[in-house]
Amino acid sequence: MKLRTKPAKGTQDILPNDMALRNYVLDTIKQTYNEKGFTQIATPSVEDIDLLTNSDGGENLRMLFKILKRGDKLSLPAEKEEDLSDLGLRFDLTLPLSRFYANNRNELPMPFKAIQIGDVWRAERPQKGRYRQFMQCDVDIIGESSIVSEIELLTTVPEAIKRLGFENFTIKINDRRLLKDMVVSSGISEEIFETVCITLDKMDKIGEEGVRKELSEKEITEVQIDALINRMDTKLSEINDEAAREIQDIIDIVSAYYPIEFDPTLVRGMGYYTGAIFEVQSSEFKGSLGGGGRYDNLLNKFQNDPIPAVGFSIGFERIIDLLKSKDMSVNKTEKTAIVYMEDNFLKKAVEVSQSLTGKDQITSIFKVSGNKIGKKLNRLEAEGFTNIIVVDRMEG
Amino acid sequence: MKLRTKPAKGTQDILPNDMALRNYVLDTIKQTYNEKGFTQIATPSVEDIDLLTNSDGGENLRMLFKILKRGDKLSLPAEKEEDLSDLGLRFDLTLPLSRFYANNRNELPMPFKAIQIGDVWRAERPQKGRYRQFMQCDVDIIGESSIVSEIELLTTVPEAIKRLGFENFTIKINDRRLLKDMVVSSGISEEIFETVCITLDKMDKIGEEGVRKELSEKEITEVQIDALINRMDTKLSEINDEAAREIQDIIDIVSAYYPIEFDPTLVRGMGYYTGAIFEVQSSEFKGSLGGGGRYDNLLNKFQNDPIPAVGFSIGFERIIDLLKSKDMSVNKTEKTAIVYMEDNFLKKAVEVSQSLTGKDQITSIFKVSGNKIGKKLNRLEAEGFTNIIVVDRMEG
Repeated sequence: MKLRTKPAKGTQDILPNDMALRNYVLDTIKQTYNEKGFTQIATPSVEDIDLLTNSDGGENLRMLFKILKRGDKLSLPAEKEEDLSDLGLRFDLTLPLSRFYANNRNELPMPFKAIQIGDVWRAERPQKGRYRQFMQCDVDIIGESSIVSEIELLTTVPEAIKRLGFENFTIKINDRRLLKDMVVSSGISEEIFETVCITLDKMDKIGEEGVRKELSEKEITEVQIDALINRMDTKLSEINDEAAREIQDIIDIVSAYYPIEFDPTLVRGMGYYTGAIFEVQSSEFKGSLGGGGRYDNLLNKFQNDPIPAVGFSIGFERIIDLLKSKDMSVNKTEKTAIVYMEDNFLKKAVEVSQSLTGKDQITSIFKVSGNKIGKKLNRLEAEGFTNIIVVDRMEG
Repeated sequence: MKLRTKPAKGTQDILPNDMALRNYVLDTIKQTYNEKGFTQIATPSVEDIDLLTNSDGGENLRMLFKILKRGDKLSLPAEKEEDLSDLGLRFDLTLPLSRFYANNRNELPMPFKAIQIGDVWRAERPQKGRYRQFMQCDVDIIGESSIVSEIELLTTVPEAIKRLGFENFTIKINDRRLLKDMVVSSGISEEIFETVCITLDKMDKIGEEGVRKELSEKEITEVQIDALINRMDTKLSEINDEAAREIQDIIDIVSAYYPIEFDPTLVRGMGYYTGAIFEVQSSEFKGSLGGGGRYDNLLNKFQNDPIPAVGFSIGFERIIDLLKSKDMSVNKTEKTAIVYMEDNFLKKAVEVSQSLTGKDQITSIFKVSGNKIGKKLNRLEAEGFTNIIVVDRMEG
């Protein structure tokens, strides 16, 4: 039987050129984050199913890859899906970080500045450019309630984005507390704050008219909608509020290094944010290069004491797509092919290769039949070998 | 509800120091392999269940993590386990490589020198030092039948092991064809070759007496066992055979760079090997630092034409354990803590941090209450900060 050779539905094989680009991007990000005092950790790809399903995962829970129980634990016939699974693949890195911190906090510095880089899995309907396994790349600062955390993140992630060659980007910043004030002071009930946010978040896509329509479908009055839309033009300096002062301080300090501006329409999807929220946007394309915010309550379900936290996730897969479309070449090391034709020259070929090892050279040995040598040399050139040493012509 | 904070059974959280060591080892391995002309690829963590279960996975198939079907595909109540799952987590990197090669060979060079680094999952009974998710790190050369492939692997993996600080290691080499000759010429049926190999492989653990006992339980006569044990003392030069000449050529060439010796008792577990087999052993501890061999038939189930291949897997988790026991420190970059007490010094602290960014320095900003400054500075020193800059005492 010849087996199917395609990767599983919605997943991808990564070829050498793409992998070199991914490694280059990861190395640049890790290097930048390390310089700013972040250290990398890792959690397993699988978590207990109870942990995943009792989370605030929202939509992601419907896309969970669950793992079948094994051995005696699997009792068949089974009636209910709940009885079949004890583990699941993680759908993000934030929930595992919360568990990790609770499990290991006695061994971690305070505050703790974490880098997480890893795959996550979501059983999304397959579509172009969206995969069921994809890489996330997060930095988080746990245990610090002052804005020094926001500022450290906002001088770290944009630095990595800059080093990756992106220009013309702007950091947009807002605050969940300001958003809530805006909604409540427009006469809208605090109880529907989250659902109002979901609509406001679509401003980019559906425009003011679309937002107005959707809000009125949520039984918000015309007067309230007018008030809300008006408040979205408010300038930060007009707001007399602690949150506004914090955002202003962040902007004052960060703006010396990266473009940053207040955006009262910025919402960010996740319901767990409690304070500052931010996103890196570029004038060159739609969507964001990364985003994050403060989430001071998320860790509480694992702890008895409240722990403040701020996180920033870089859009790794999006960055890869953008760099691929720029046709960026990352392999700059000199490549040398060492070619021999007769077996008694193999020893000499290995000698040449070994003498070049460790000298910032890529070497590779090729055995070629004498009558194919011309064709082979052409192919090696096409594969990027700039030096070709044919050992047969040297003194053996 | 406070949720369980431990990682899932048999899996581990990786803390910053361990992660730094893992990154150092991975970077060293990747750098060495890249210099020798290998390029990295990646396959998804999940594969179609049919691919996994129709493989030569042997024991690993009993340890498969299967993924539950989703949505309409899951029909309940379910009677049979086969109906419940459509995907599984990979248990090694060799099977995915075979599928990958068949799927992408038109876009790959010939021969193709692949690096694979990734997690694999096996539902083993949890025990000390064995995890259900662990990293594998393989190099393979696909498409070359001559011994240049064996030699490239045997001058690449040992180089990485050397760079990681291991000394006193020896490459042991044997050949499956020689093993088969040895068994068959002892009068033992070729049909039970694999099971005889499984017993011979235990020579280290159970000794000659144990091996004799186990072989006699497999209904091999005393005369045959004597003949077999005698043949295990054979020197390579005494064997008149193509396989023996190849192994001798490999030894002649590799021995100029790394210690290598013929070991007629070397078996290697996997049934798919067809030619040379090898292992890196150290006098400092039992077990191997890595091993591999030629497997010229494994790719055939995906291809219509036969494709030769040789692979070498470095024992990544074992190397990590050994380096941890050596208490190896990998973090040599200078660490600077920038400390401020009053909020109006935050801007200055950020200035200092930004001025050090990109200068091979690790910087981190800390807000400290004035009355805790002494305690905090002591803690920062304990955390490895060799420079501490207190911004309040500078001109603001």
